[in-house]
Amino acid sequence: MQSKPAQDDKQAIRESVNTWLAASKKGDLSTLLDLMADDVLFIVPGKEPFGKEAFAKANQEQMKDVEMDATIDIKEIEVVGQWAWMRSFLKLSFTHDGKTARHSGHILNIWQKSPSGRWVIKRDANFVKPD
Amino acid sequence: MQSKPAQDDKQAIRESVNTWLAASKKGDLSTLLDLMADDVLFIVPGKEPFGKEAFAKANQEQMKDVEMDATIDIKEIEVVGQWAWMRSFLKLSFTHDGKTARHSGHILNIWQKSPSGRWVIKRDANFVKPD
Repeated sequence: MQSKPAQDDKQAIRESVNTWLAASKKGDLSTLLDLMADDVLFIVPGKEPFGKEAFAKANQEQMKDVEMDATIDIKEIEVVGQWAWMRSFLKLSFTHDGKTARHSGHILNIWQKSPSGRWVIKRDANFVKPD
Repeated sequence: MQSKPAQDDKQAIRESVNTWLAASKKGDLSTLLDLMADDVLFIVPGKEPFGKEAFAKANQEQMKDVEMDATIDIKEIEVVGQWAWMRSFLKLSFTHDGKTARHSGHILNIWQKSPSGRWVIKRDANFVKPD
């Protein structure tokens, strides 16, 4: 059986995920950036790992006039102290000018509990690609 | 400064990595399997995550009559209790019938310390692909 603190932390991570998805849909970049460690790294196919600044730039360019929807299936979360890892499957749809593109893929990510008690993304290995 | 036990664990993980690479080069599948948790999952582009049995099958088929070389650049290791995560960049070469193919890519993986004290791979998000 898991300890109560570990259960609470899992719930807090799920809430960070929900906040992330809601902010993505709204195009609320500042909330997204608050959910990342300052030295976050996104690891994706076909390019070098990138951090917060590159995320912000790409987000602003790609999400202009795009309506986005997202659903996530969290497969597992393991919490240990101030660290956690999570495996999930993410489905995204992007609608622009009446056309919808669907992307999906597996994600393995590392979370870190910040001194304020908020769980933020530290590393994100992201296989999401066009369906 | 890091505690002595965390330093020792980092060193033990580096040794597991070296054992892994040496076993890969020799085609020593049983040593590779011993370095995985029973419920290990490899997450790679373009297919569903797979475990120990599928790894063994693919390894036997793909590595027949192939000479393999590998070098790894370990970018970071973070240890917390019985868990650790590691980010690395792996370069592989496969030589068969005098022809050499080179693959490389980033890896984010989760390690778990087994009850025997050996560090084994629990999850492996692997972006290695043909150069």
